[in-house]
Amino acid sequence: MGQYVAPLRDMQFVLHELLHVEEELKQLPKHAELDADTINQVLEEGGKFASSVLFPLNHAGDREGCRLDKATHAVTTPKGFKEAYRQYVEGGWPALSCDPDYGGQGLPLVVNNSFYEMVNAANQAWTMYPGLSHGAYECLQAHGTPEQKQLYLPKLVSGEWTGTMCLTEAHCGTDLGLLRTKAEPAADGAYSITGGKIFISAGEHDMAENILHLVLARLPDAPAGTKGISLFLVPKFIPAAGGTPGARNPITCGAIEEKMGIHGNATCQMNLDGATGWLIGEPNRGLQAMFVMMNAARLGVGMQSLGLTEVAYQNAVTYAKDRLQMRSLSGPKAPDKPADPIIVHPDVRRMLLTARAWAEGGRAFSSYVALMIDRELNHPDEEVRKDAADQVALLTPIVKAFLTDNGFAAASEALQVYGGHGYIAEWGMEQFVRDARINMIYEGTNTIQSLDLLGRKVLMDNGAKLRKFGAQIQAFVEEHGTDEAMSEFITPLADIGDKVTKLSMEIGMKAFQNQDEVGAAAVPYLRVVGHLVFAYFFARMAKIALDKQDSGDSFYKAKLATARFYFARLLPETAMLIRQARSGAASLMALDADLF
Amino acid sequence: MGQYVAPLRDMQFVLHELLHVEEELKQLPKHAELDADTINQVLEEGGKFASSVLFPLNHAGDREGCRLDKATHAVTTPKGFKEAYRQYVEGGWPALSCDPDYGGQGLPLVVNNSFYEMVNAANQAWTMYPGLSHGAYECLQAHGTPEQKQLYLPKLVSGEWTGTMCLTEAHCGTDLGLLRTKAEPAADGAYSITGGKIFISAGEHDMAENILHLVLARLPDAPAGTKGISLFLVPKFIPAAGGTPGARNPITCGAIEEKMGIHGNATCQMNLDGATGWLIGEPNRGLQAMFVMMNAARLGVGMQSLGLTEVAYQNAVTYAKDRLQMRSLSGPKAPDKPADPIIVHPDVRRMLLTARAWAEGGRAFSSYVALMIDRELNHPDEEVRKDAADQVALLTPIVKAFLTDNGFAAASEALQVYGGHGYIAEWGMEQFVRDARINMIYEGTNTIQSLDLLGRKVLMDNGAKLRKFGAQIQAFVEEHGTDEAMSEFITPLADIGDKVTKLSMEIGMKAFQNQDEVGAAAVPYLRVVGHLVFAYFFARMAKIALDKQDSGDSFYKAKLATARFYFARLLPETAMLIRQARSGAASLMALDADLF
Repeated sequence: MGQYVAPLRDMQFVLHELLHVEEELKQLPKHAELDADTINQVLEEGGKFASSVLFPLNHAGDREGCRLDKATHAVTTPKGFKEAYRQYVEGGWPALSCDPDYGGQGLPLVVNNSFYEMVNAANQAWTMYPGLSHGAYECLQAHGTPEQKQLYLPKLVSGEWTGTMCLTEAHCGTDLGLLRTKAEPAADGAYSITGGKIFISAGEHDMAENILHLVLARLPDAPAGTKGISLFLVPKFIPAAGGTPGARNPITCGAIEEKMGIHGNATCQMNLDGATGWLIGEPNRGLQAMFVMMNAARLGVGMQSLGLTEVAYQNAVTYAKDRLQMRSLSGPKAPDKPADPIIVHPDVRRMLLTARAWAEGGRAFSSYVALMIDRELNHPDEEVRKDAADQVALLTPIVKAFLTDNGFAAASEALQVYGGHGYIAEWGMEQFVRDARINMIYEGTNTIQSLDLLGRKVLMDNGAKLRKFGAQIQAFVEEHGTDEAMSEFITPLADIGDKVTKLSMEIGMKAFQNQDEVGAAAVPYLRVVGHLVFAYFFARMAKIALDKQDSGDSFYKAKLATARFYFARLLPETAMLIRQARSGAASLMALDADLF
Repeated sequence: MGQYVAPLRDMQFVLHELLHVEEELKQLPKHAELDADTINQVLEEGGKFASSVLFPLNHAGDREGCRLDKATHAVTTPKGFKEAYRQYVEGGWPALSCDPDYGGQGLPLVVNNSFYEMVNAANQAWTMYPGLSHGAYECLQAHGTPEQKQLYLPKLVSGEWTGTMCLTEAHCGTDLGLLRTKAEPAADGAYSITGGKIFISAGEHDMAENILHLVLARLPDAPAGTKGISLFLVPKFIPAAGGTPGARNPITCGAIEEKMGIHGNATCQMNLDGATGWLIGEPNRGLQAMFVMMNAARLGVGMQSLGLTEVAYQNAVTYAKDRLQMRSLSGPKAPDKPADPIIVHPDVRRMLLTARAWAEGGRAFSSYVALMIDRELNHPDEEVRKDAADQVALLTPIVKAFLTDNGFAAASEALQVYGGHGYIAEWGMEQFVRDARINMIYEGTNTIQSLDLLGRKVLMDNGAKLRKFGAQIQAFVEEHGTDEAMSEFITPLADIGDKVTKLSMEIGMKAFQNQDEVGAAAVPYLRVVGHLVFAYFFARMAKIALDKQDSGDSFYKAKLATARFYFARLLPETAMLIRQARSGAASLMALDADLF
């Protein structure tokens, strides 16, 4: 029933050979003592936990799903989920990158990020229970009062309690300005909150003794729209003296959704009937506070799809080596067998390498972004922090949208390798496709990500952030421009860099005339920039691999082959995307809505 | 819970204004009397049946699925399926395009094809029960003895009995040469057949009183491989005197598969324990006989995805007009409402128009192919029949692969229009995606289709069939090359035509050196040729629409807008595909299998 082996070798390559995290972290006082061995050990242990505890629950969790007892509002998670969560807590995993002041282990996010790739690969539905806690932790840490932090953070860090994000309502998802949940002032500075929320992942479950809901709602005097939204902390059980769960707060699960996938995770409709909550941050500034959570969540969603890409790839490879079917067109490769293993067929290899390249590129890219977050949070030099923050702002929507589009495509290709068996539940491949589909939607649809990238991150500052990142690529191009062996990578990298510059300017000019040009170009634009970033990281990885290809370690041969595949087969998507992005708004806007 | 309205206006446009079927059919003695009104009436009634009887069962059928009673081997289909089948039989629908000699109505396939688009749009899982009968009908008609025809065809035509195709075994799907099911001669010229088959759609059910299984098996003295496969007719109940179902034949359902989608259809593991069967056609020529069925089935699979494309599109449009979320970037469009309907957003329109263009192009193209089959079967002039047969051979793998890839993409885009709601089962969109996924796999995976196109249909006759079809496109280009208003369509059509010619020659040259070049190029190649065909039909449709755009009928305005969208946004995929197809086998074959 499938397998998952943590890709430790490639993670080590990315962290140490590509990103030199040990040296990088030496510049961050908080992490200066961390060495490569410790990082590798943590990831090795994490990989074991993912493979041996979480992966065996993945398929069964999908088949079983979650159950709601309507009378008690209690949600039962699939068999084994609760026990796995206990092991997760006992292993100290929730605390990995949390602040030691609250019981955390203080490891950098770049390590936590790799850990998250593995647990998501093993079981996305399960990982969403603790995954949401992480957002709540970051939001409280950034915006909570000292008392709130003291009361709640240790519980989140230990994993005793989990967290949620309660944003969406039935009539508003993307457009949170429309939300209606009300918060009325109550005794002791608390608020009484009433309303209905939907799509609340891990909104109710049986894995932890308490759940901290972060809820967006409106104060009585709040202005309309997004400027009248406040953020509240609404615990399932109100902490009693000593911090133990006390009175049950009337925030209850009214229904759990039947979904395409992630069946093991309870997607809850939550009803708040005068639930007691406490303001987080300033009144009417709830969206800003929530954005702390959302940015982390967007990187997290990228990691979900990276994990699915990897696990789908691994299983497809195993099948392609085992399954005997037809002979190679260029002559039998396993003449002693009744047919050749299907991995001899070029198109099977195309499907496998597509998933492989999306995984390897995504791993390099997302690890880089996580490292930039560490730098943004902890570098002593403000200039450096600011520069890292700009990179994170620019690259986060790309991690979210590009990796999730790629992950869905990769899972679908991996399914296809199985032929008819891919469509059958017991092989597990179709679950990866179903699970991967949500990642293109939640935490801001991929269209929203693309508008964020093109509208806010690129056009709003006239391309300044993009130019800064482009200069880094340009420096690499110049450094290796005369290296004959690198020209197969440098030439197309330089080319796509030029094209991104021109395309950005062209869209910027058109947007002056008509803002719809931004919406018309945004989705293909994001993917073009995603390819620029992937081409850059594949070129850097190829350089390392070229230097070590005669080391006797076949890892570098494989890395080089994957990089070459990326440039030959995946980067050409930009030829389509640039034409689409340049085709403008006219062909989209011509048809009257009535004529659709 | 969703909707489906038969796209009658567009079907009429395709059949009458684009393809002039009435005139075309006048050349075929069998159909010479058929007029447009009759065709329209049949489709109107068919549309009503699809919308009112089948569509309401689609979502419930998906949720309920099929149940097997292991003791009796009986399969229960979802609630309402049986009754809908009764109405289908009573309405005479199974007989639509069957031979009047066996009780059929003798309508051309081009009409049946449109009917199949509608029933598939309404309920693919249900339609697969009678859909498989059609293949059995065609196979028996082509290869059965007069006695077999007399005994079985009237039952298939009336719909009293249904049919199946029993090809796949656990260890062989694509590679049927490996199959092991045995047929031993028995009394009275019958055979005793033993073996196991998997993935048998509609292999067992409660909708008809008998099921005729067409089974591939090996005779005792059969040569190994594909040249030792024979085709047998194995009825569930052996017909007794008078043609009523008699003794139960030991061909039974051992299990039904849990699948990603098409839950309403029973995908059966069939066990044959000395089941009685009769040879169809010649010994050891079973694959050739089966291919009659497979070609029809491949067109049928294309229609399944065309149907899903249309129904997913329709529902996404309704949602996009209803759902209020955010303001248009170019200023409020519904200032009286709390937000604009999301159809104002360019990227929502991109998603909708993508599905719309795939549907309209697919309808034109597949109707054309169906008409060519009518011509192939019934034209009095052998030359014309041969020419039509060549076109059908060339175009069938494109209908199958191009329309099913597009259908999956379209359903996924339509889901995305719904945001989070698209992922929730009750909206019905995620079912379309799950159902659409199988169509890329069965009846020959899309990779197999692409190898069939490039290897057999193009390279094997040095491009003769492709050149003949290309000449037809060239004639259109020349006819309208000086028409200013058509230049926006003619220029890119001529361009992609040239590129297909060059690409075909280039791959042909490379294939001389290395047959793996065929496998490496085939998948993108098929999609390039698919675009050539779509560009041709969209250009033809645009010509009609341009001529009538001032008629006051807004249908033509919409057609023109969709054609322009196709050229602006979808045709550019060829820029990617051609690069991929030209990139060759090297980047696919470089990595040792061990290093994957």
